[in-house]
Amino acid sequence: MEAIGKKTWIIAEGYIPSYGHGPEPQFTSHETACILNTSDREAHIKITIFYTDKDPVGPYEVTIPPQRTKHLRFNELKEPEPIPKDTDYASVIESDIPVVIQHTRLDSRQAENSLLTTIAYSE
Amino acid sequence: MEAIGKKTWIIAEGYIPSYGHGPEPQFTSHETACILNTSDREAHIKITIFYTDKDPVGPYEVTIPPQRTKHLRFNELKEPEPIPKDTDYASVIESDIPVVIQHTRLDSRQAENSLLTTIAYSE
Amino acid sequence: MEAIGKKTWIIAEGYIPSYGHGPEPQFTSHETACILNTSDREAHIKITIFYTDKDPVGPYEVTIPPQRTKHLRFNELKEPEPIPKDTDYASVIESDIPVVIQHTRLDSRQAENSLLTTIAYSE
Amino acid sequence: MEAIGKKTWIIAEGYIPSYGHGPEPQFTSHETACILNTSDREAHIKITIFYTDKDPVGPYEVTIPPQRTKHLRFNELKEPEPIPKDTDYASVIESDIPVVIQHTRLDSRQAENSLLTTIAYSE
Repeated sequence: MEAIGKKTWIIAEGYIPSYGHGPEPQFTSHETACILNTSDREAHIKITIFYTDKDPVGPYEVTIPPQRTKHLRFNELKEPEPIPKDTDYASVIESDIPVVIQHTRLDSRQAENSLLTTIAYSE
Repeated sequence: MEAIGKKTWIIAEGYIPSYGHGPEPQFTSHETACILNTSDREAHIKITIFYTDKDPVGPYEVTIPPQRTKHLRFNELKEPEPIPKDTDYASVIESDIPVVIQHTRLDSRQAENSLLTTIAYSE
Repeated sequence: MEAIGKKTWIIAEGYIPSYGHGPEPQFTSHETACILNTSDREAHIKITIFYTDKDPVGPYEVTIPPQRTKHLRFNELKEPEPIPKDTDYASVIESDIPVVIQHTRLDSRQAENSLLTTIAYSE
Repeated sequence: MEAIGKKTWIIAEGYIPSYGHGPEPQFTSHETACILNTSDREAHIKITIFYTDKDPVGPYEVTIPPQRTKHLRFNELKEPEPIPKDTDYASVIESDIPVVIQHTRLDSRQAENSLLTTIAYSE
């Protein structure tokens, strides 16, 4: 299948709660970027994290194999540094080939979890 | 009414929980692709499912009659094979005429259900 | 301010639950089309409702005054006929001048309400 | 990094609940516009609020520093006047340079909070 999507994606909303309820790891509070690479080539992804009151951090690098999806949890990003909890951030996600990105958050801070999702902004 | 929409749609987020609470079938945990065909012709839909660590599966074939909507639950797809539960996936939905697709999930794993929705990515 | 937006909008997901919890009318389960008319003229809106297994119904007609927003609840539409409860539907919303439409649902069938939203599809 | 995004954004859905549950300020019911300015220049933002039955109010002015994100809570807007609670509104957000805006609401009126999000409409 040909490469579907765009090379630049933005998720302006980001926030990793510091605690949660429910069985791990499904109910750990998390932010996810669901990335789909429909092409026959590897997608090389670079993520830059923007903050409210300090300089951007990155790039975080991720590779998506051909014809695969990756549901990337932001709290699993380690290099160059983990994203702090309870902190507002935003992310720019750049790929060398077109991909599609959807943003999802599970918030399990209270007894019943809450979900949000949106297709990210692309250009 | 003329055909409104696009022929290629992507839902990068996909996950069917394996259990739920509440009366069936309204409160069964489910992923839905709400498809609208405004045209005077049948829309022939082919769905391909992408996974994290195995090759894509499909096409799943669905027909939407003229001037009808179908709220398609992914857990009702049977051929070529059911989508496994508790597994990350993404979907490419291709139609021979323009349609509009919106993605919704009801998650009823905990006592109170949670909902998410977004217009899918199109091109 | 000039007219911002598009003239044709689609909400492919529609479902009005037949019951709910919590004080009325804020916690009545409802589907809403939030419509914004930024222009100096009235916006004349025509809504057509599509179903799974019967012909489309409409137009439902709504007027939005200049420089006003209307958060239209689908369960308040009466003419030509109310939208049935517990039934899948989709809507095409056409305006004579550009407007912006966002779709929101409050589901209060269980003790804790659940919310979803998305900018509708436009062209 | 270059400026990514658009200069005009619309959030057609707006509603600030008048009460909530849970620890303050994280669980205060709130509407948020998450704004990302990826450029090397300040973004000067003007927000106009539209209502159902009175004239628009604004502009509310906000500045986003270069390479920063701001998760702006609508209930923190004070000049020219606070947005009333329990009132439907919509917002037009204009920037002098391209930015990206995502809309999020936390509704904590009931014991368990509920979340919604969408990328705003842009042009």
